[in-house]
Amino acid sequence: IVPRGAGTGLSGGAVATEAVLVSTMRMNHVLRVDPEDRYADVEPGVVTAAINTAAAAHGLRYLPDPASAEACTIGGNVAENAGGPHCLKHGVTSDHVLELEVVLPNGKTLMLGRGAEGSLDVASLLIGSEGTLGIASRVRVRLVPEAVAVRTALALFDRLQDAAAAVSELLSSGVTPVAIELIDGATIRMVEDSVYAIGLPTDLEAALIVEVEGFPREVEAEIEAATVVARRCGARDVRLAADEEERAKLWHARKKAFGALGRQAPEVLIQDAAVPRTALPDVLARTVEIAATHGLEVVNYFHAGDGNLHPHLLFDPADQDQVARVKKAAEEMMRACVEAGGTITGEHGVGLDKRDAMRLIFQDEELDALRHVKAAFDPAGLCNPGKLLPD
Amino acid sequence: IVPRGAGTGLSGGAVATEAVLVSTMRMNHVLRVDPEDRYADVEPGVVTAAINTAAAAHGLRYLPDPASAEACTIGGNVAENAGGPHCLKHGVTSDHVLELEVVLPNGKTLMLGRGAEGSLDVASLLIGSEGTLGIASRVRVRLVPEAVAVRTALALFDRLQDAAAAVSELLSSGVTPVAIELIDGATIRMVEDSVYAIGLPTDLEAALIVEVEGFPREVEAEIEAATVVARRCGARDVRLAADEEERAKLWHARKKAFGALGRQAPEVLIQDAAVPRTALPDVLARTVEIAATHGLEVVNYFHAGDGNLHPHLLFDPADQDQVARVKKAAEEMMRACVEAGGTITGEHGVGLDKRDAMRLIFQDEELDALRHVKAAFDPAGLCNPGKLLPD
Repeated sequence: IVPRGAGTGLSGGAVATEAVLVSTMRMNHVLRVDPEDRYADVEPGVVTAAINTAAAAHGLRYLPDPASAEACTIGGNVAENAGGPHCLKHGVTSDHVLELEVVLPNGKTLMLGRGAEGSLDVASLLIGSEGTLGIASRVRVRLVPEAVAVRTALALFDRLQDAAAAVSELLSSGVTPVAIELIDGATIRMVEDSVYAIGLPTDLEAALIVEVEGFPREVEAEIEAATVVARRCGARDVRLAADEEERAKLWHARKKAFGALGRQAPEVLIQDAAVPRTALPDVLARTVEIAATHGLEVVNYFHAGDGNLHPHLLFDPADQDQVARVKKAAEEMMRACVEAGGTITGEHGVGLDKRDAMRLIFQDEELDALRHVKAAFDPAGLCNPGKLLPD
Repeated sequence: IVPRGAGTGLSGGAVATEAVLVSTMRMNHVLRVDPEDRYADVEPGVVTAAINTAAAAHGLRYLPDPASAEACTIGGNVAENAGGPHCLKHGVTSDHVLELEVVLPNGKTLMLGRGAEGSLDVASLLIGSEGTLGIASRVRVRLVPEAVAVRTALALFDRLQDAAAAVSELLSSGVTPVAIELIDGATIRMVEDSVYAIGLPTDLEAALIVEVEGFPREVEAEIEAATVVARRCGARDVRLAADEEERAKLWHARKKAFGALGRQAPEVLIQDAAVPRTALPDVLARTVEIAATHGLEVVNYFHAGDGNLHPHLLFDPADQDQVARVKKAAEEMMRACVEAGGTITGEHGVGLDKRDAMRLIFQDEELDALRHVKAAFDPAGLCNPGKLLPD
């Protein structure tokens, strides 16, 4: 049984090999929005952005914002414990699920709350389990008030290393941005060459998007502090979005970078490994080196504040030699992250793609413990076989 | 095998009936503080406040602040998923544990990270499992920078209901306090009659402590907004702590209320059920009613922002009839919380005390699923037998 929402996942979790595919796409109803206790009950096939549309009618919003929010579903977000640019301050899907209804492989339905501290937190185990334990059939998500004020800065850097170092500096400065995105020069040139162009200099090595939110006076103080830090770290220029329109345009450019990639190469492999943020400058340099060694083009734009690297390796699937080099480079990048104290996946999950890589971060005994947990829910191995756990 | 830290738990989780007691009190070393990547590695017997002492040397702090922080240990905090007044904004223990080393009943040691989104989040399952799955032998906790600025207001109310309503209003207003504590008139009189007196009028029905933190200009804006809301809800007066000394005194009075109780009665039972915060005014009134019906004295002071009720029922253990009435009243209060959409425990855990009450919030099939999970870790039932899960 392979559960599948919109199929936007990036690690192959929703790919059916020899299995029954269970689509949640018609379970797409927002069942209830409670503006008083601030939650929404939704079916798993509800598109993430639709939760925000329903919440906005009450001045509320759902915080996690995967880049694919306008296509992906909440069921898939729960299965992958999806992140997004604004998860830096607000936390990932797991931090915003209040209750789960889950159908187990034995056909039974469980209601799993998360309020009961002290009970076994089975809901947390289900979140991020990639469909290997059961299928979420209803999700209660937390809603919060819309931000009173938001400010967004774009810091332009001549050196990629300076931008990476600025991320660490920003986070040590006491400012808590809701998002810090790093976009490298290749991404900037790609976006500027597309319909999403926003007029950035194409000779930059990197730009940082820094966003803060809160009360009006608070955001002015924070964005001012962020600007000072960026300049101290060598930013050539720091631009503030003057209004909501400029801000929306900036984020649109960031979120559509993936689409703009389509003009550059027929295919792309995104390595989703993550590192402690102090390791970011070194590991980022290492990914550039690795790509160069294998004669590959790499494009970097990612949730830098989270240490969530996303090197994009461009390739042509018809070129078998290039495909082999891309695989090798991606593997080396992942190992570099793990060696720097990081992990194999930041937010895209393990799925089919990284099953074997689980051995890089878990000992045999730890994998055994994970298999025991799976067997407790799914003794016959019916749920998403061949995903997440290595054989 | 019953693991035990400082034994400050309030649901009996660390009480050994017929079992081997494993004390963690000598595993009390802070192994490492990493000020760059901002974490501390500590042994389970480290007293929670000692983490803050070690972190403070680097301008950092550990956020969860159980009222017993100067006595309780991080191992116990992990086992109970402890909260505290400041968990309203900052989240509970689970939100601040980055990694766990756990010894399973089969003697094997697992390292469980939490960074790997997409892997089975076994660490989350261990946190709050009250020693029923294994024992944490090392904990990596997140550290964050000390607050740049803090403001604390004390709002005085003639009517308990107004104070309870103000909590909902505050949280809907866009202000996000780090803490909202409600203290009822009985608590105020008790504190004023003790060495922790801070000069409050003793004819009040309730007071709210509201604390905000952030940048200086931000906290001024937020505390101003909070003051306006409190007055609109009927506060007689709102006082701002002028400096750190006044603030410390205020919190000291709040945190020592439990000690002050010792002068009022030989014993106290604290009911730790929780409700959605919109249900707070009604359920609070209901607890006062229930206590009156049974001819009992009830004292209320609690983390109101979280909907975390803590009615304290005073009694004399020598008075068997009174003991029976206290148990009955506590049970009725818990049921009232569950009926209002709440749960049996906010932060004190299930332990021995609320095992049977698990049936109020879980169906048989759900309890079966929990038992299966336990059996996956502890097939022989060695870990903290007779706790958490009903027979």
